[in-house]
Amino acid sequence: MNRMSRVLACLCLACASSPAFSADPLPSWNEGPSKKAIVAFVDKITQQNGADFIPVEARIATFDNDGTLWAEQPLYFQVLFVFDRIRALAPQHPEWKNTEPYRSVLKGDMKGLAASGEKGILELMATTHSGMTIDEFSAIVTDWIAHARHPKTGKPYTAMVYQPMLELLAYLRQNGFKTYIVSGGGQEFMRPWVERVYGIPPEQVVGSQGELEYKMQDGHPVLVKLPKVALVDDKAGKPVGIQRFIGRRPVFAFGNSDGDRQMLEWTTAGTGPRFAGIVHHTDAKREWAYDRQSKIGTLDKALDEANQQGWAVVDMEKEWRVVFPPSR
Amino acid sequence: MNRMSRVLACLCLACASSPAFSADPLPSWNEGPSKKAIVAFVDKITQQNGADFIPVEARIATFDNDGTLWAEQPLYFQVLFVFDRIRALAPQHPEWKNTEPYRSVLKGDMKGLAASGEKGILELMATTHSGMTIDEFSAIVTDWIAHARHPKTGKPYTAMVYQPMLELLAYLRQNGFKTYIVSGGGQEFMRPWVERVYGIPPEQVVGSQGELEYKMQDGHPVLVKLPKVALVDDKAGKPVGIQRFIGRRPVFAFGNSDGDRQMLEWTTAGTGPRFAGIVHHTDAKREWAYDRQSKIGTLDKALDEANQQGWAVVDMEKEWRVVFPPSR
Repeated sequence: MNRMSRVLACLCLACASSPAFSADPLPSWNEGPSKKAIVAFVDKITQQNGADFIPVEARIATFDNDGTLWAEQPLYFQVLFVFDRIRALAPQHPEWKNTEPYRSVLKGDMKGLAASGEKGILELMATTHSGMTIDEFSAIVTDWIAHARHPKTGKPYTAMVYQPMLELLAYLRQNGFKTYIVSGGGQEFMRPWVERVYGIPPEQVVGSQGELEYKMQDGHPVLVKLPKVALVDDKAGKPVGIQRFIGRRPVFAFGNSDGDRQMLEWTTAGTGPRFAGIVHHTDAKREWAYDRQSKIGTLDKALDEANQQGWAVVDMEKEWRVVFPPSR
Repeated sequence: MNRMSRVLACLCLACASSPAFSADPLPSWNEGPSKKAIVAFVDKITQQNGADFIPVEARIATFDNDGTLWAEQPLYFQVLFVFDRIRALAPQHPEWKNTEPYRSVLKGDMKGLAASGEKGILELMATTHSGMTIDEFSAIVTDWIAHARHPKTGKPYTAMVYQPMLELLAYLRQNGFKTYIVSGGGQEFMRPWVERVYGIPPEQVVGSQGELEYKMQDGHPVLVKLPKVALVDDKAGKPVGIQRFIGRRPVFAFGNSDGDRQMLEWTTAGTGPRFAGIVHHTDAKREWAYDRQSKIGTLDKALDEANQQGWAVVDMEKEWRVVFPPSR
């Protein structure tokens, strides 16, 4: 960087972090303990001569997706995508009517599906997530996310992202953070739409992923998705994914379930100031209320650890003025 | 980003890419065909209203490391690191004197080592690259890169990077490119020093990598390097690594050997303007001269394809004014 652009870059940063440009960067958050803790942390680590200053290149923030940036009930949205795909592909597979686990999906029989166990789920994943090129898969997801509707709210899934978290992502980026998704969800399932919805580019999406094969197809190189898991980016897989893809330890991390516990531990065990937050689903009226007993997004051990370690636990009902973005 | 910082960001970009700030961004390149092709490409894709304009977020440039950004003779520098580590660890392993492949390494017997085959090499890699935490490994590499010297030139390895390529990296970044390393070398072997040397941050380093295990050690979480390969980022593994880590196809790529062929194919097979370049080691006097017959950095099929496809082939002897940075 030459001298003039360095000067201007400094100016930009100064502007971006100046409160004069935004009276309240988090308008959908009530003046509760979580908002106070977030703002205090960002103020502290951006003070150039302060003891807690963190240089821009180390301002890495990682966010879980399901239950942290968008909703995850009654089932992870990627599972609902799988069901939709099975229904869409069924006419080409008449044998599915009599073959588990397809039969249960087509009949909407969740008990029957549960009976097929992990093997059944893996088969559904392989059928819907492999055997095509990454470009083909990306086109399928792009089409689905544009047209599919949530079974309870009737909204597009991208309308079920959390407005307070969108503000938090933007606020961190304005303060020089690089924001990443670190999710148990599929990396290639998220990449086609998260840039538009969250402002997070494809190269900052860490997720579960399958093996890929590079080969020539009709004289053109393609990458084909294989039915073999390369990384399960959940629980202890999250710090592994973070190290592989980012190579630096985050200073700020947010999750909502026991699947995020190791990411929050790894983040806060680093030296210097660290922030860990948990979205606690306490709002049965505007969203869903669930924690320790829920099969989706179980929050049990991570809640105990949050209380012990003083991680921010966001009481959705009390701390969020709005949950979903106003409809456009 | 608020309005003021957006305006300033635009100003920065304008300054950075303005020729007024650097009469010649590539002073170590002669006015040969490669420099002309590079500058013409960058000029073309940065013209806001031009037919070939590429938006900043899609300006992804990937570079091989060994033989492209730094030298690779008489052996890949990471192999020389392995030998140094075996020698450093030998006092704690008296049995190595009589055990292959250690014995050959300690005696400097390259024929004996070759006789131990791929199995021997994998054992040496496992011994020197696993069984420690990533922080411990990073400290070992940092110490080695600071003190080790090249067997022929006596220089630190970081002084054997190519000055013309450093200028190319900086020139691309000034024009809004995100520069990545995509190397067959170890990801964690490169990360400790490439930011300082090339200006490439850890999160933009894609390399071969081993599995990691997250666990608690004395009450603190650690990531331990396991003796199991997760990705060989070479040949067909390069497009796979690019997709996994970047999730976008590069528009600019540089390599020097058949190991880079698939990366260059993948890059140039995308739609719109693309650039592929190859460093051709033609300079026996200032560096080394090798291509089709060399065991290290074999350039054979990729050279044929470059000639067929019109990729830029940099004649090091003729096109580079200097090879290595002036000593400081």
